Amino acid sequence: MDILFYWTDQAGVAVFAIAGTLLAFRKHMDGFGVIILASTTAIGGGTVRDLILGLPVFWTHDPTYIYTILVAAVLTIVWLRYKAYIPMTTLQIADAVGLAFFATMGAEKALSAGFSPFIAVIMGTISACFGGMIRDVLARDVPMVLKSELYATTCIVGAMVYTLLVPYYPIIALAAGMLSTLIIRLGAIRYQWSLPVFPDHHDHH
Amino acid sequence: MDILFYWTDQAGVAVFAIAGTLLAFRKHMDGFGVIILASTTAIGGGTVRDLILGLPVFWTHDPTYIYTILVAAVLTIVWLRYKAYIPMTTLQIADAVGLAFFATMGAEKALSAGFSPFIAVIMGTISACFGGMIRDVLARDVPMVLKSELYATTCIVGAMVYTLLVPYYPIIALAAGMLSTLIIRLGAIRYQWSLPVFPDHHDHH
Amino acid sequence: MDILFYWTDQAGVAVFAIAGTLLAFRKHMDGFGVIILASTTAIGGGTVRDLILGLPVFWTHDPTYIYTILVAAVLTIVWLRYKAYIPMTTLQIADAVGLAFFATMGAEKALSAGFSPFIAVIMGTISACFGGMIRDVLARDVPMVLKSELYATTCIVGAMVYTLLVPYYPIIALAAGMLSTLIIRLGAIRYQWSLPVFPDHHDHH
Repeated sequence: MDILFYWTDQAGVAVFAIAGTLLAFRKHMDGFGVIILASTTAIGGGTVRDLILGLPVFWTHDPTYIYTILVAAVLTIVWLRYKAYIPMTTLQIADAVGLAFFATMGAEKALSAGFSPFIAVIMGTISACFGGMIRDVLARDVPMVLKSELYATTCIVGAMVYTLLVPYYPIIALAAGMLSTLIIRLGAIRYQWSLPVFPDHHDHH
Repeated sequence: MDILFYWTDQAGVAVFAIAGTLLAFRKHMDGFGVIILASTTAIGGGTVRDLILGLPVFWTHDPTYIYTILVAAVLTIVWLRYKAYIPMTTLQIADAVGLAFFATMGAEKALSAGFSPFIAVIMGTISACFGGMIRDVLARDVPMVLKSELYATTCIVGAMVYTLLVPYYPIIALAAGMLSTLIIRLGAIRYQWSLPVFPDHHDHH
Repeated sequence: MDILFYWTDQAGVAVFAIAGTLLAFRKHMDGFGVIILASTTAIGGGTVRDLILGLPVFWTHDPTYIYTILVAAVLTIVWLRYKAYIPMTTLQIADAVGLAFFATMGAEKALSAGFSPFIAVIMGTISACFGGMIRDVLARDVPMVLKSELYATTCIVGAMVYTLLVPYYPIIALAAGMLSTLIIRLGAIRYQWSLPVFPDHHDHH
C-alpha cells in the first residue's frame, strides 16, 4: 500500500507542476520564474498540510519530489515550444487531475498521522486547493477555488469518499476518491454545474 | 480563566467567519468558495501564530472551531438572502470586533507558551491581522492592514494593553485590551483618524 | 564563524526592511502598514524557511531582529521625508543586496541543521525569494521573482556557490556566494539579461 501511495503522491506532484508551467506560459513568464510557479503549485498544498499537521515537510527528506517537478516542468516547456496556443481547459484538466490525487493523498496523510476523519477531510481539501490557490495569487489570477463553483466541493467530496471507504477497501477507496473528484470537477467545467449560495445580485458593488 | 479564554477564542472565530462571508457576498462568490473564504479569515491568523510559535495548530485537535465557522457562515448566508445590499461598514465592523478578540487572545497564547511580552504583542498583531490579510489577498482586495490607517496600530495597542495588565488583573486585561482595539478601530473608521508617516506626495508613481 | 553569520543575518534583515519601506512609500501607504510591509519583507522568507525545516522561527527567540527592522524602517522613513521621488532602481538594488544575504544564510541554516546540499540550495532560494514575494503580493505588485528574468536564478546560483565552497573555505564561500548573487542580479537589472524559456508569443491571452 505504501508504495502505491508514494507513487500516487509523485504523480500528483508531476500533474500540478504541469499545471503551474501552463499558467506560467499563459502569463508570458520566463527564466526560473516558470520553475518557481511550477514548484509552488506542486508542493504548496502538501507543504501547508504538513506544517498544519506538525509533520516533517514531505519533500525536505526526499529530493525525488523536486526531481519530479523539474522533469515535469522541463518536458512541459519543451512541449509548449511547439504550440502556439494552449486553451484554458488544458490547464483546468491538469488542475482537476492534480486535485484528484491530492484530495485523497492529503486525507490519507492526516489519517495515517492519527488525526480524526473530520480533520482528514479538511486536510485533503487544503492539500488539493492550496497549491493552486498560491499559484493563482502569485500569478495575479482570481483563485480558481473562489471563482469556480464546485471547485472546493469536489475536493471535499473526494476526501470524504476516500476517508469513508479506506478502513474497509483501501485500494477501492483510492480509486473511488480520485474518480469522484475528477468526474465532478470535469462535469462542473464542461456543463457549468454550480452551487448557488447567494441569490442573484447584480445591482450593487 | 481557561474556559473564558476558550469561548472568547470561539467568538473571535465566529466573528471573522461572518466577515469572510460578507466579503464573499460582496465579491459575488458562490459554492464552497464562500466557506473557504470564511474559514481562511477565521482561522488563518491563528494558524500562522501557532506555526510560528511552534505550537500544535489550535483547530486540528478541536473540531469545534470548524463547526463554529460552518454555523456562523451558514447563518450569515441565510441572513444575506434577505438583504439586497450590505454596506462596507458592516464588513469593517465585523472585522473590527474580530481584531479585538484575536489581538488579545493571540498575545495570551504566546504568553501562556512562555514567550516574552514583546513577542506576545507581535503575535497578538499577527493573529489579528493575518486572517484578514489572507482573506483580502485571496479576494484580490487591497489588504485593509495596508490601506487603512491605524489598522495594525489598533492591534498593537490592544495586545500591549492586554500584555501589560494581565499579570495583575487578567479579566480586566481582557476587557481593556478588547475595548481599546475596538474603540480605536471604530473611531478610525468613523472619524478617518490617521497616522501620517510620509509627507504628501501626489506628484509621482 | 557564528558571530559573522549572526551579523550577516541581521544585515540582511535590515536591507529587506529598507526595501519593504521603499515599496510602502511608492504605494502611498501610511501608519503601521509601512512597518507591517517592512517586517513581512524582512522576516517572511526566513520564517517560511524555518517552518519548512522544522526549526524554531529565528526571530521568536531573539527580539534583536525586530529592533533591527524598526530602526531600519524608521531611518528609511526619515530619509524619505526629504526625498520627493525614489526611482524603482533604488528599491531593486536594496532588494538585490537582501537576496545576496539571504540566499547564502538560508543555505547555511539548512546545512547546519543537517539537511542535504540539494535542500540547502532550495532553502537559500526560498529564504531569499519569499520575503519579497509576500511583500509584492500584499502590495499587489507582480512578484519580482515571476516577472524579472534571472531573479530566482541569482538566488539559486548564490546558494549553490556557497554550498559548494563552505566545506573548504567558509568565509570565502560567504563572500563568493553573496558577490555572485549580487553581480548577476545587478547585471540583470542594468543590462536586461534574460533567460528565455518560451518562444515569443504575443498573439493570444
